[in-house]
Amino acid sequence: MSDGQTATKKMRDSVSAASISAQLVKRGFRTRSIANITPINPSANRIYGPAYTLRYIPMREDLATGPKTGQSSNPQRRAIEEAPKGSVLIADTNGLDVSGSFGDILVARLSQRGVSGIVSDGPMRDISEIKQMNFPVFSKGNAAPPSYTSMMAADTQVPIGCGGVATFPGDIIVGDEDGVVVIPQDIAEDVITAAYEQDLLEAYIRARVENGESIVGLYPPSERVLSEYEEFRQEKS
Amino acid sequence: MSDGQTATKKMRDSVSAASISAQLVKRGFRTRSIANITPINPSANRIYGPAYTLRYIPMREDLATGPKTGQSSNPQRRAIEEAPKGSVLIADTNGLDVSGSFGDILVARLSQRGVSGIVSDGPMRDISEIKQMNFPVFSKGNAAPPSYTSMMAADTQVPIGCGGVATFPGDIIVGDEDGVVVIPQDIAEDVITAAYEQDLLEAYIRARVENGESIVGLYPPSERVLSEYEEFRQEKS
Amino acid sequence: MSDGQTATKKMRDSVSAASISAQLVKRGFRTRSIANITPINPSANRIYGPAYTLRYIPMREDLATGPKTGQSSNPQRRAIEEAPKGSVLIADTNGLDVSGSFGDILVARLSQRGVSGIVSDGPMRDISEIKQMNFPVFSKGNAAPPSYTSMMAADTQVPIGCGGVATFPGDIIVGDEDGVVVIPQDIAEDVITAAYEQDLLEAYIRARVENGESIVGLYPPSERVLSEYEEFRQEKS
Amino acid sequence: MSDGQTATKKMRDSVSAASISAQLVKRGFRTRSIANITPINPSANRIYGPAYTLRYIPMREDLATGPKTGQSSNPQRRAIEEAPKGSVLIADTNGLDVSGSFGDILVARLSQRGVSGIVSDGPMRDISEIKQMNFPVFSKGNAAPPSYTSMMAADTQVPIGCGGVATFPGDIIVGDEDGVVVIPQDIAEDVITAAYEQDLLEAYIRARVENGESIVGLYPPSERVLSEYEEFRQEKS
Amino acid sequence: MSDGQTATKKMRDSVSAASISAQLVKRGFRTRSIANITPINPSANRIYGPAYTLRYIPMREDLATGPKTGQSSNPQRRAIEEAPKGSVLIADTNGLDVSGSFGDILVARLSQRGVSGIVSDGPMRDISEIKQMNFPVFSKGNAAPPSYTSMMAADTQVPIGCGGVATFPGDIIVGDEDGVVVIPQDIAEDVITAAYEQDLLEAYIRARVENGESIVGLYPPSERVLSEYEEFRQEKS
Amino acid sequence: MSDGQTATKKMRDSVSAASISAQLVKRGFRTRSIANITPINPSANRIYGPAYTLRYIPMREDLATGPKTGQSSNPQRRAIEEAPKGSVLIADTNGLDVSGSFGDILVARLSQRGVSGIVSDGPMRDISEIKQMNFPVFSKGNAAPPSYTSMMAADTQVPIGCGGVATFPGDIIVGDEDGVVVIPQDIAEDVITAAYEQDLLEAYIRARVENGESIVGLYPPSERVLSEYEEFRQEKS
Repeated sequence: MSDGQTATKKMRDSVSAASISAQLVKRGFRTRSIANITPINPSANRIYGPAYTLRYIPMREDLATGPKTGQSSNPQRRAIEEAPKGSVLIADTNGLDVSGSFGDILVARLSQRGVSGIVSDGPMRDISEIKQMNFPVFSKGNAAPPSYTSMMAADTQVPIGCGGVATFPGDIIVGDEDGVVVIPQDIAEDVITAAYEQDLLEAYIRARVENGESIVGLYPPSERVLSEYEEFRQEKS
Repeated sequence: MSDGQTATKKMRDSVSAASISAQLVKRGFRTRSIANITPINPSANRIYGPAYTLRYIPMREDLATGPKTGQSSNPQRRAIEEAPKGSVLIADTNGLDVSGSFGDILVARLSQRGVSGIVSDGPMRDISEIKQMNFPVFSKGNAAPPSYTSMMAADTQVPIGCGGVATFPGDIIVGDEDGVVVIPQDIAEDVITAAYEQDLLEAYIRARVENGESIVGLYPPSERVLSEYEEFRQEKS
Repeated sequence: MSDGQTATKKMRDSVSAASISAQLVKRGFRTRSIANITPINPSANRIYGPAYTLRYIPMREDLATGPKTGQSSNPQRRAIEEAPKGSVLIADTNGLDVSGSFGDILVARLSQRGVSGIVSDGPMRDISEIKQMNFPVFSKGNAAPPSYTSMMAADTQVPIGCGGVATFPGDIIVGDEDGVVVIPQDIAEDVITAAYEQDLLEAYIRARVENGESIVGLYPPSERVLSEYEEFRQEKS
Repeated sequence: MSDGQTATKKMRDSVSAASISAQLVKRGFRTRSIANITPINPSANRIYGPAYTLRYIPMREDLATGPKTGQSSNPQRRAIEEAPKGSVLIADTNGLDVSGSFGDILVARLSQRGVSGIVSDGPMRDISEIKQMNFPVFSKGNAAPPSYTSMMAADTQVPIGCGGVATFPGDIIVGDEDGVVVIPQDIAEDVITAAYEQDLLEAYIRARVENGESIVGLYPPSERVLSEYEEFRQEKS
Repeated sequence: MSDGQTATKKMRDSVSAASISAQLVKRGFRTRSIANITPINPSANRIYGPAYTLRYIPMREDLATGPKTGQSSNPQRRAIEEAPKGSVLIADTNGLDVSGSFGDILVARLSQRGVSGIVSDGPMRDISEIKQMNFPVFSKGNAAPPSYTSMMAADTQVPIGCGGVATFPGDIIVGDEDGVVVIPQDIAEDVITAAYEQDLLEAYIRARVENGESIVGLYPPSERVLSEYEEFRQEKS
Repeated sequence: MSDGQTATKKMRDSVSAASISAQLVKRGFRTRSIANITPINPSANRIYGPAYTLRYIPMREDLATGPKTGQSSNPQRRAIEEAPKGSVLIADTNGLDVSGSFGDILVARLSQRGVSGIVSDGPMRDISEIKQMNFPVFSKGNAAPPSYTSMMAADTQVPIGCGGVATFPGDIIVGDEDGVVVIPQDIAEDVITAAYEQDLLEAYIRARVENGESIVGLYPPSERVLSEYEEFRQEKS
């Protein structure tokens, strides 16, 4: 169903994490979806872009202090200023879940710089402030303490594990209310195109279901349904 | 407080899971409530109906593929077409929480067929689509991957465990924002009637509390309060 | 940054849990924040007041019944009538998470009596009713069963552990969407004042970030930024 | 099967936690067993005695220091010197599992003083030293840090929750490799006697099973089997 | 490396779960290993045989009583008398972990009947008795309460999920100290033969490692190492 | 109590993780102990040496295959050949717990090369083989699948988080049955010396306890006890 063509802006803006996950499974990738993270902002509940990675390790009391955290050599601060426009800053919090991995000032700076959004497998803080920014932030839970009470940034742009998913710099991150999927860079265009096609087909199938048809033969679609769908598409275009 | 009479439609539409749970405890049932599942749709946050059960087991890679999942002999698909009008489709996901137990097309079909709603102790996918349907779906968390990446349906209409609660086909399922309770079929009418009465009594008590009374003697109600309540009811009717 | 002066009403009404947590860390307290609890009411998502503590232990079947629960000697009921106006009723549920630690009638009574709010590290029940009260309730999850199916109150006004945080009667409780922090009583004024100052400074910093400045030198603020901030404050006042 | 007579020393020395649990269930107590704790010493894997309770709460950094821990007013130290000869010191660690709730010196002192043993729902430290004492210690896991890094003792001889089980001072504690059960004091003699009888009957049944009989009619025993057992007992005595 | 020949008794008696798991992965099966269960008896820490399945669901208080549990129609009791000689009784406990899924009398009967062993993803009870039988029992943890306090048997010989692994009647179960693997019946002979060959090869490699060789080129083995191994085998036979 | 002198071999061979943890807390380090990992070999239950770190991330299906795992460029294999004699190979498994982080051949090679031992916060495989080597392996649980079914090595000698503890290359690792502690390199000598002194003092205190003394004034030791201890030491030397 995928023709290999370049993913268009429309595809990127609407393709669902659910269909991407299904297309990844088809290609042998069963473990590419980050579970149990959700968008903080109802008004910014989609995320899309190439991964810029950040890796946290547990804090050490003599190193993890407010001032040391702010040094420009700190990988967290470097990430905030270096993650390219359009990228998604994605963080591996090493399972640490008692402090916020980012707060509102860092989020505001990323938004200002044109970064596409943040994905963290740990909590956020300053949540009521972040909710007022129109900026996609996907994370797990809430926590008041600053990051340095439990974690410290170790490096950027290395392969990480985010929520159990291997993530390499440049992998394509797509997220919506179902969760976040990480697409290996070299198959991203193909997967996104195929997933977008799947979304269109499923919308067609769902419309027929809502008109009262049984799912038998319809979902997954029989050959006949697929050719009716082709007809429908040609009429529409 | 229960007179054993048949539960009326009004009772069914408003009785609270909290009072049902209390009435079940009174009858010796301390473990009839499914914890940690919530309604996906704010506009459809109540569920009521007899259980139609579905049992999942972990997937096996050679059996759990998209096409095989769609075969009409697949118990999941059979459930979608067979769960009776008015029933609640309730699923035991065997503790599997990394893929969606149902997606929007199956949910749409159940809604079309007049099923009352879905309860799953696992995640859902296509959540933004499901949120737009006026149909009660109670589940735990979100996940982008299709069900077959972690689970496959084993059978329907057998006794299951949903979220730690033994559920038999025909048991009465009642859910609201507090969670979902499962009432053994042969005591359901009695429990629902008594719980509805308890709801009315507690609304009366709460009104008095909101007028400034202490809970001492009022909650739980003394004999005097109970007779004042009887008076109040008779005046009202 | 703290001048030790008494925290004003304005400070109390707006100070963030995030900044309080940072100020506590500065003073050597790294473990004063309750994770994974959230406000039930979007319209009452801040809490502030001195702690009135309640301790639950697991229920024992012969003691944990509805009527016994209602006796005025029951510490839960005593807490409802005794927690002082303005205080925060804070409960240690001993890790029990399958029944509601409070329901709507008790919440209504606390609200009537002028208590500031409730914090529980366990679930609530009667959630749809509680959502309609304009009263702060911070808890973890939802559960339909009444408290006595899994827990019973043991005593009040003793030191407790709430969500992993040591809480003494009189400690100052502050909560918002980031979570709840517990400030030791004798440093509360100082911590709140300093946190409020930090909030103001961070709002100033964030405004500059939103105007396009880099965080380098700005956050954490350099000496220069701090003196510019002082200027800004004086102009403003 | 219980005749209500006083539990003899033989009963106390051999009665199984498994049968006690079954007898408690018969009397309506389904939640009296502490799961997931095990004896540290293979050579001291039984424990028996009335409960002396100790309650921990989370540490607070300014209070939880080595020297303060050692003050004789510290409830932990008081417990070590006050728990009566023959009693079981049982601790509620409030879910804190990253530091040892007791170490070898305190254990040695309890052993010296004739206390029957320790039950904790948290970890122990100095495990290799404790393994060399012939003294029953039941706990959950291991941890190197001293108790004061995560917990501090709050009081003694109050009702506690140990591993999810309500425990009152004076309750009878019985433990073996299956776990630890807590028997309400006023039914302890009756439960222990009945459980001991059950142990004898089950040993008889198991001997017949090992001689090749089917469990049908034998386990649970039919009337005929019960009368054969009575005969067997009379012959034996 | 597998020649498809029938697995010999020697293979069955020694093949490692680790190598079987590796062979299953080679064939596309990444999820066939039950984690976190261990053998109770040090002297019986291997298990092998075709699966006879048993499925538990949560107990319901009116059905889960001692006497009802003993009825011969109870699937648990039926399993005990019907599981064929040589088979492995494998149980899905539906995530219930607070009561023993089997006790010593049932284990003794299975041993007497020539069943090969038991695998349960829940706890066992009567552990000190079971430790004295020379019979393989693989389970997770310990618990004193009888099974009926938290679970009841629903049916036998249906597909189940044991510890997250889909298990069909007749699948081949192999377990050792690394855990338990479940081999789909129709590839079992092939997988076991190949795994046994892998074990032999790895023993050879390990011997060379213990003689001081680097793993480079040796593990995984280069073509040269593989031909040296062939030579070694021929010399040996 | 520490005189800053270099830690002797005797100190290194016997110092306890428990006392090291206490000394670290004294210096402000409350989070330096890895919980819930245990030695596999009863005969090799102590570990000591400078850290050589290895970092795993989740596997990606197209990269995580047996042969790719064996390439000498694979950081896992590099670690096996490069970890210096005397060092402790310590691995961050990124929370992945369903496959073995190391197996017997790799362990044998490390042992051969004179590495001091292995610490992993994930499971091991080939456990029965490893148990026969006299080599310290500290890990969490058991798993049959090879590492590449869930994880792949990302790099070596970078700062990692092992079981929630920040670990830098060169940090001193000490482990025994209480768990594993990680000492920052620049305070290691001082901490170990002080901990060894603490062990000696506590052995003296315990001997007095075993002779019947109360812990009051003895533990923690009063000034008088400390001077008696000094006397005892001088007599002894």
